[in-house]
Amino acid sequence: MLRYHMEINYKQRFIHFKKGTVVLAGAGPGCKELITLKVYSALREADIIIYDALVNEELLNLSNKSSQHIFAGKISKKKACSQKDINEWMVYYARKNKKVLRLKGGDPSFFSRGSQEIKFLIKSKIKYQVFSGISSSQQAIKKANLNFFMSNGICNFITGHRKIIDEQKVSDINKIFHNKGKIIVYMGIGQIKKISGELIDLGMSKKTNVTVVSKTSFSSERIILSDLSNIAKQIIKHRILPPSIIIIN
Amino acid sequence: MLRYHMEINYKQRFIHFKKGTVVLAGAGPGCKELITLKVYSALREADIIIYDALVNEELLNLSNKSSQHIFAGKISKKKACSQKDINEWMVYYARKNKKVLRLKGGDPSFFSRGSQEIKFLIKSKIKYQVFSGISSSQQAIKKANLNFFMSNGICNFITGHRKIIDEQKVSDINKIFHNKGKIIVYMGIGQIKKISGELIDLGMSKKTNVTVVSKTSFSSERIILSDLSNIAKQIIKHRILPPSIIIIN
Repeated sequence: MLRYHMEINYKQRFIHFKKGTVVLAGAGPGCKELITLKVYSALREADIIIYDALVNEELLNLSNKSSQHIFAGKISKKKACSQKDINEWMVYYARKNKKVLRLKGGDPSFFSRGSQEIKFLIKSKIKYQVFSGISSSQQAIKKANLNFFMSNGICNFITGHRKIIDEQKVSDINKIFHNKGKIIVYMGIGQIKKISGELIDLGMSKKTNVTVVSKTSFSSERIILSDLSNIAKQIIKHRILPPSIIIIN
Repeated sequence: MLRYHMEINYKQRFIHFKKGTVVLAGAGPGCKELITLKVYSALREADIIIYDALVNEELLNLSNKSSQHIFAGKISKKKACSQKDINEWMVYYARKNKKVLRLKGGDPSFFSRGSQEIKFLIKSKIKYQVFSGISSSQQAIKKANLNFFMSNGICNFITGHRKIIDEQKVSDINKIFHNKGKIIVYMGIGQIKKISGELIDLGMSKKTNVTVVSKTSFSSERIILSDLSNIAKQIIKHRILPPSIIIIN
């Protein structure tokens, strides 16, 4: 195993972060060293950092000492603000000529409301840049030792969190079932019983492998291997909580 | 627009790269600053760097001066070696107690033969680590200003390069057509006429938006916007070459 060091030299500079602009950046799945050089540099140069609940707070230690940090958690247990608040903070500080860093878990282009925030910035005539991050599924797939594209060339990415609220049936699962690809579910831990039940009803084998990678890349990372018929019970038994990635293949 | 600086301080250290091990790392889509801190550190510490054709060669400037670089291009025009050569090089140098960095474009877990290389390392009893990278679709989606998961929660990732050789019909396209999600094609430029024709035959509207992002994140990046019926012609007209990401939505 590799050990990690974090010897930061503050003279490094990979970007020029203009005053009065917003950088929307992906902080990756958690592990500090999984941020890109661009995000690292943005962290150091920002005046204002608006960060999500899934961002590793230790990353804030890399920021400028005079910077201001605003917690923008929206998940149930750590709810701190609304999307409207976040939009307004970004615009408010950018208009004050600050370098505003909007730091999101994972990748802002991949399962996030990044595009909604961008629309608001455009409407408000605020200049912005988007910096990609490692998405949690990339790390989870690696940890689960899965071949991403081997025997079957299709991989389906879906979110699990909305379906239980909106509908009786997990409609996305129904639509993707027939292509027989891997299914990668973000934010689906709370709905796993519904998702696995639906797949079995559609005709997927109860013995289909399911891997759940929880808090991937954090020191508290956990991996559960099971099958479709048992995964819901295993998640309860092992007290697996969000954020987790579910890989069905 | 942000300007980029690359002021590297060689005292930074984010990982402990053990002698006699292999690090399989993702170099991202091209732009040097899109590598992670982990990959950056691996680049600096490696004794041997075996790098693919899609890796930005400027990254090699970050490496240790005494390190040895082996070009391992496998794409048609820049073919330098076989997969067998690469496997054998990794094992040969690891057994010589070197720190071996296997540097791949994008993310080794996402559309690459990373898993085949890992199997060979396991069989050869060589210790390894995998470091994720930004995959080119993440950057392409961002550049194309697309919402990743908004109105339709499904995104299909496929590779385009094999189908034309193996089969008359583009079978993966056929399988995923019915879920109505976004289709993101890696390595499909050479087959775009076949892919778009197949989708039209299946009933997809000729007016469906197609975005092609070529050499994403490089200074030579180009973006083509068209529709299903015209994209093949546009690609020829604008002389778009691989590597490119095709986004159909």
